[in-house]
Amino acid sequence: ENSVKLYNLYTHWLPKVVAYFFILLLLSLAIFEKPAVPGLEIEYYVTMPMEVICLIVIGSRLFHLKLFSPGKTFYSDKKNLVVMATMVVVVIDMISYIALVNSGQAMYAYRWSRPLRPLLLVNIKEGRQIRRAFRNIRRTLPDILNVLVLFFLSIALFALMALKIFERRPELRLYTDNSPYFKHYGDIYFQLYVLVTTANSPDIMMPAFDSNKWFSLFFIVYVVVCLYLFMSIILAVIYKNYRKHLKNEIKKSVFIKRVKLERAFNELKEEVGGKSVVTEKTWYVLMKEVLPNKTQVYYSLLWLVLDKDANGYIDQKMFLQVADLLNVEVSEIRNQKHLIEKYWPHVYNSSVSIAVRQVVMHKFFRYFFDLAIVVNAFFIGFNLDEAEWFFLSVFTCEIILKLYTYGFSEFCRRFWNIFDFIVISAAFIATIIEAALEELQYSRETLDVLLVLRILRLLKLVGSIDRFKIIIGTLTNIAPSMFTYGGVLFVFYYVFAIIGMEVWGTMLSGDVNITFCNNPKLNGSEFARDHYCNNNFSDLLTSFVLLFELMVVNQWHVLTSGFVAVTSAWARLYFVAFHLLVVIVVLNIFLAFILEAFMLESSLSTGKFSNAVEEKIKEM
Amino acid sequence: ENSVKLYNLYTHWLPKVVAYFFILLLLSLAIFEKPAVPGLEIEYYVTMPMEVICLIVIGSRLFHLKLFSPGKTFYSDKKNLVVMATMVVVVIDMISYIALVNSGQAMYAYRWSRPLRPLLLVNIKEGRQIRRAFRNIRRTLPDILNVLVLFFLSIALFALMALKIFERRPELRLYTDNSPYFKHYGDIYFQLYVLVTTANSPDIMMPAFDSNKWFSLFFIVYVVVCLYLFMSIILAVIYKNYRKHLKNEIKKSVFIKRVKLERAFNELKEEVGGKSVVTEKTWYVLMKEVLPNKTQVYYSLLWLVLDKDANGYIDQKMFLQVADLLNVEVSEIRNQKHLIEKYWPHVYNSSVSIAVRQVVMHKFFRYFFDLAIVVNAFFIGFNLDEAEWFFLSVFTCEIILKLYTYGFSEFCRRFWNIFDFIVISAAFIATIIEAALEELQYSRETLDVLLVLRILRLLKLVGSIDRFKIIIGTLTNIAPSMFTYGGVLFVFYYVFAIIGMEVWGTMLSGDVNITFCNNPKLNGSEFARDHYCNNNFSDLLTSFVLLFELMVVNQWHVLTSGFVAVTSAWARLYFVAFHLLVVIVVLNIFLAFILEAFMLESSLSTGKFSNAVEEKIKEM
Repeated sequence: ENSVKLYNLYTHWLPKVVAYFFILLLLSLAIFEKPAVPGLEIEYYVTMPMEVICLIVIGSRLFHLKLFSPGKTFYSDKKNLVVMATMVVVVIDMISYIALVNSGQAMYAYRWSRPLRPLLLVNIKEGRQIRRAFRNIRRTLPDILNVLVLFFLSIALFALMALKIFERRPELRLYTDNSPYFKHYGDIYFQLYVLVTTANSPDIMMPAFDSNKWFSLFFIVYVVVCLYLFMSIILAVIYKNYRKHLKNEIKKSVFIKRVKLERAFNELKEEVGGKSVVTEKTWYVLMKEVLPNKTQVYYSLLWLVLDKDANGYIDQKMFLQVADLLNVEVSEIRNQKHLIEKYWPHVYNSSVSIAVRQVVMHKFFRYFFDLAIVVNAFFIGFNLDEAEWFFLSVFTCEIILKLYTYGFSEFCRRFWNIFDFIVISAAFIATIIEAALEELQYSRETLDVLLVLRILRLLKLVGSIDRFKIIIGTLTNIAPSMFTYGGVLFVFYYVFAIIGMEVWGTMLSGDVNITFCNNPKLNGSEFARDHYCNNNFSDLLTSFVLLFELMVVNQWHVLTSGFVAVTSAWARLYFVAFHLLVVIVVLNIFLAFILEAFMLESSLSTGKFSNAVEEKIKEM
Repeated sequence: ENSVKLYNLYTHWLPKVVAYFFILLLLSLAIFEKPAVPGLEIEYYVTMPMEVICLIVIGSRLFHLKLFSPGKTFYSDKKNLVVMATMVVVVIDMISYIALVNSGQAMYAYRWSRPLRPLLLVNIKEGRQIRRAFRNIRRTLPDILNVLVLFFLSIALFALMALKIFERRPELRLYTDNSPYFKHYGDIYFQLYVLVTTANSPDIMMPAFDSNKWFSLFFIVYVVVCLYLFMSIILAVIYKNYRKHLKNEIKKSVFIKRVKLERAFNELKEEVGGKSVVTEKTWYVLMKEVLPNKTQVYYSLLWLVLDKDANGYIDQKMFLQVADLLNVEVSEIRNQKHLIEKYWPHVYNSSVSIAVRQVVMHKFFRYFFDLAIVVNAFFIGFNLDEAEWFFLSVFTCEIILKLYTYGFSEFCRRFWNIFDFIVISAAFIATIIEAALEELQYSRETLDVLLVLRILRLLKLVGSIDRFKIIIGTLTNIAPSMFTYGGVLFVFYYVFAIIGMEVWGTMLSGDVNITFCNNPKLNGSEFARDHYCNNNFSDLLTSFVLLFELMVVNQWHVLTSGFVAVTSAWARLYFVAFHLLVVIVVLNIFLAFILEAFMLESSLSTGKFSNAVEEKIKEM
């Protein structure tokens, strides 16, 4: 009894939200810890107590889980062990940090446990989907390892060729920094790796190409083999694995579902005419217990589907289909009365009101406002800001009319209506703020926000063009899963950002008035010449932007060269590791996911199994 | 009778090879026509007669086809019409060119029909596979068009935002050329398109980022939407279509095969016991007619498989499986006698010879030479060239011993043996040439070739590591199909190269001693600063290299800017068209092909249908 109460408390939404809040708070401490976002720096004797509070909250949730878990299951669950180990390590780190700082050895004091923080996010009980994505990555790794080894061997071979060919041509020099061309094996290897990412193409070829055009053959063969072939193969291997694992997971979950349903059937069964069956009466009792917030009509509907021969009971075979049936979305259109209809029926049913509603429901109503958007686009394009109030009121009218006609709940069923509502009301608020502030101070930032809102309004037009509906439909269907990959990326970004901040933290300054990023080692470097000083690890948010740029890949070798210049060539390992993990592994898995999602979207209603697959995809 | 003779002559290999030779000759004329590869220029009054000869040969082959084609089929075949139309257009072009040149108006004389030449390559009867690839592309286009339109609309929206936000910040300037930052809508649009290709990331963001870090949000959202989302969706749509069309083609070809086999069965059938069947006798007659160069044993084997109940006849159902059965590769190991065994049996069977053969067949023999390769790699790495003769003779010994043991035909069955043979014998020849020339003149180029051959030798090691065998196996399986895509790319390259040469031919000079590529309009441009002068359209081969660089994508906007600077902003259309067609369409179809090939490779022996699919894939 007590366990059930504890369990119910544990799965209540409030403690869940609290746990998530404190985990996010713990993660966001990196914004305030040194090196902090400018203006937000908080000393360690303030952040550390906050960190302790976070750990206590997370720990107490874990303790709560232990209270009602049967003996061994708690300790046999790796997740719990990982969370506990992480907390112990963090506490040790904090103590040693305080000890070092207070014994006057602050220069040796690193908060080295900070990259472990995302472990708490991934390993709490609710992070199931993100954990599954990580499992997916882990399982795919062994298979791409073979391809990667072959890939790195190929680069090694090409690098050896390049070394041998160009060491007899010492007159060649790189145009970018006038350094010797293909001189040291390690450098060549790195340069050729960069060439696979295409970031230094065609610059790396030009000195050789200028001396003899036939050298281009070497680079073309290299790019065809190592970029077009190997990168395609890596994607193919990842996609193959993705599908394989997806299939296995579905098989497993179907099996588990079956076993559980069989157990349930055995609990509920009665003997009728020599057969084990579940009767209609049991069904209603069960439904009321399991789905208390559905109506009686819904229970009956399900029963009608299950009890095909209408003999008042269903056998095991039918009962096993309950789970699939519950997945079918049944929308109960309750004949809800419009609020106005309820309170002022004579107004709502007056001839004017009926006419208005008929106009709003007419297709020309939609066409008219689509046209208004197009006209609005031209006004924005030609900077005719005076008309803004007019358009804002026109679109507000549209929303009010639609609200009046369809009612609030019906209005909210459509994505574009909600979108419209948010964009227009935000614009309204921002316009009022702007108007109020105009006399005080001219705010460019508010204007920017307003402008973006105005232009976003145009987006609605896309939603009303039929040919785009399939694409947008698919996109909104897979959007939740995309957020899972966002979470995975966040974890990688966080770990790499913390490490980057510890290593390069304040070595560079992004101040545009200071030359060479305030570091003489960057004097004359490509990094400084390209004005990349602001791409640094000076705080968490800036680090995230830098890591995003590294993910986009272009110029990553120049960014790398900057951080190599202020430390050592070993820094390349950090950037290559990021590229391998994030670009080659995670982004390709994301691509595999999109591919599979689109393949499934087309075969939406072709069978139970693919539905199960789709279900799974949505969860991922 | 006459028709059959003509048909047999038409499908003979010799006229086919002749036709291909003259088509390739026609295509390669672009190397010699102005602007020609340096040193290979031939005047038009020499190339044109060659062109005429090529057209005559191609035309006569077409005439040959017409002679035995039944009336309408010849003219109802689009291929023939296209070839004829192309030839007419080329003739008109030649005449008008000669007329213009001889009337003293050479500056208006363009050989505008040259981009049409690949039409002849694609539309001759033998270009089936390349034509199928083009059909694939054409069919996929309508489906990606929707996505592309949405994609371009999104860019338009983002460009409008950028225009509005940054036009109120005139103080910002691009670092690369100090031009105004996001000033004109057309330029912004192009810049944002380039950003989708990642080529100008992060440079395009830096001025905004330096002024306010929150501007990075705009670029991050843009890249996520337009690069990560849209480009993934385009690949997904292409992959989906690829699979759909593949399935349809297979269904169609299976249907056609069935119809043809049924017709054959009806011709051959006899009545045995009231059933229509094909008897064993008929079978042998048929086989001898259809597959004259197979042995009697092979015919019997097939019959054994088909006639399961061994009653001397097969019914229609079994007969329909003949085609699938013929696809199964049966290798007849003929007990061929070794040449030496044949002529000097006492030598071959002497105890020494037997011992040698046993040694060669032992696994340590392979290990020993694998080790030798590794040692060789170190010798190459440390420039110990003196040992080269030693290694060359060691590896030659290996080949001779293997040839002795396995015999020539058995030796040639393994890919790596052939590879080894070619590489080693080429190295031998090159070494001898080098040794002979050394006293005359030191040739760096021969040495380069030698070096590459030496290092290629190391590649053999990869073939003997088990874990790579699957990957390499798949690669060699799909290699022929990859050549088809090579052909498709060649066609696109050729067309674009010819157009590029006509437009920009000699505007730029790649001579490193001349500043600004010999064009004052490039004074101070990024194109000249990056030493890209040699990336131009001065001849066919150089154009191909430039187009390859454009396909690799990186820095394509800088290359574009150079050609825009010497002509006009409209030149961007050429480069964007190339990017859209080659990178977004063709490369993604290639990727779809690799994905599907890898998916099939794993389910190799899981069923007839997937085998049919694989067959098809191999053809494509």
